Amino acid sequence: MVQGYSGTTSIEVQKFQNGRFISKADILAKEEPLEIRLATGLDIASTSQSITVTMRTPGSDFELAAGFLFTEAIIDDPGLIESISHVFDAGLENNYNIVEVVLREGHYFDSSKLLRNFYTTSSCGVCGKGSLDAVKVNVSPLLSDHKLKLSAKLVSDLPNALRDSQAIFEDTGGLHASGIFTTSGQLISLREDVGRHNALDKLIGEQFLTHRTPLSEAVLVLSGRASFELVQKAAVAGIPIIVAVGAPSSLAVELAGELNITLVGFAKRDSFNVYCGVERISEK
Amino acid sequence: MVQGYSGTTSIEVQKFQNGRFISKADILAKEEPLEIRLATGLDIASTSQSITVTMRTPGSDFELAAGFLFTEAIIDDPGLIESISHVFDAGLENNYNIVEVVLREGHYFDSSKLLRNFYTTSSCGVCGKGSLDAVKVNVSPLLSDHKLKLSAKLVSDLPNALRDSQAIFEDTGGLHASGIFTTSGQLISLREDVGRHNALDKLIGEQFLTHRTPLSEAVLVLSGRASFELVQKAAVAGIPIIVAVGAPSSLAVELAGELNITLVGFAKRDSFNVYCGVERISEK
Repeated sequence: MVQGYSGTTSIEVQKFQNGRFISKADILAKEEPLEIRLATGLDIASTSQSITVTMRTPGSDFELAAGFLFTEAIIDDPGLIESISHVFDAGLENNYNIVEVVLREGHYFDSSKLLRNFYTTSSCGVCGKGSLDAVKVNVSPLLSDHKLKLSAKLVSDLPNALRDSQAIFEDTGGLHASGIFTTSGQLISLREDVGRHNALDKLIGEQFLTHRTPLSEAVLVLSGRASFELVQKAAVAGIPIIVAVGAPSSLAVELAGELNITLVGFAKRDSFNVYCGVERISEK
Repeated sequence: MVQGYSGTTSIEVQKFQNGRFISKADILAKEEPLEIRLATGLDIASTSQSITVTMRTPGSDFELAAGFLFTEAIIDDPGLIESISHVFDAGLENNYNIVEVVLREGHYFDSSKLLRNFYTTSSCGVCGKGSLDAVKVNVSPLLSDHKLKLSAKLVSDLPNALRDSQAIFEDTGGLHASGIFTTSGQLISLREDVGRHNALDKLIGEQFLTHRTPLSEAVLVLSGRASFELVQKAAVAGIPIIVAVGAPSSLAVELAGELNITLVGFAKRDSFNVYCGVERISEK
């Protein structure tokens, strides 16, 4: 298998078709672990802390790290970041699977916020509203903004627009995508990953690092289903409209409703469902 | 939204079709957090430890808890389990979102194994083979077993057989499924969940609790893509053949190859790809 810092790899497969096997070349989406470390600017060696390990498709790793820290409410300002770099180590086979984010001198992070991600407190009280609080980061509801309108026609066009822009999916058929569009349907940015939360973190991380958040004029398009986690990440980034090609979960709908986010599911060329915030979508 | 211990919930949606919105009833797959706790039989109150919180579809929670502990290599024998129960607490709104597994008196678990799941050690060395070790539980390669054969025709039929048996997907269009079949195509068991790893843990957990593991004669069918994590869970359960409707990732193929597991991807009525272990599938 070809190694290297790219999102795909080549392989030989046995394809069964027309009653027999033939050997052919195929392309796979890469999946590798990425460890994200966070350090304050004061004493890197002693305070660098492993925040998470995620199985991701290599590429846009700095954006993924920044997006993760932002959407998990660990940092809220790109100006706090002194540097983001790969950690090189002679003992490592690949030198791109650890990313270290260093905060500016004098800035610290609240490590109690990490507990939410690792869910290791036994007192987290997982139950109904209580559970929501336990897994929810602090996000303010969006102000209702009736100026932001999208036509139903445009909503129907977005899934194809996303698919047409997916570079790796084309090759592998194996990746989730997250894209943001303007309300007139222009693609702003798109990221792909084997993990849907990673695709969204890469996308939001890029916008965060270039000081473009909150994304209060953007429409987020998801290639698959809409989970609680994805709606929450979008909410932290201030995104008011989410269009998913797949189904939303109950908790995704509940959170979108609470936060005044427009949530569309089962988006297809000729139909879609609006679960909340239908006032942002016009029939014409 | 209807609350209660079921996998679905009803909701009113605005459906856009034929140029206009109509209000209609819709059914969503439920997503709620489940906390899994583990205790030794000696002193439950003081040693009960929160192992993980997963966003799952309510239902088969005991099987999910047992399957998680088994496939993450925390326990390897159902006989070690004294009891599995929901934790009731007057302060909780729902009484089914915490499950406690109690081990028999005298049995302990190795809490260092938990670190693998939480990935919180900063020394985990995430890199190529090193990374694989860090995220991999100990699984022995399957013995090559040329007696176990599946016809290509049967492989082609499995995705539809799985889909036909999916109860909740029918209603919601929103769930991942994992099913195991005999090599003659008979469905043994099937589980659904908003999280694909949960669907597989529920399925394997049920088999584990009824002393049916290792599943060395079973064919696992996955409704979506095959990730590293899913192949690893199947491997712990001793499953020799995996048929995925979607694409496998690079690391899924690598692990299946290492462990001598047959891995099929893009399974459709008229074609499929075999990524490793083609000797278990006959053209006729």
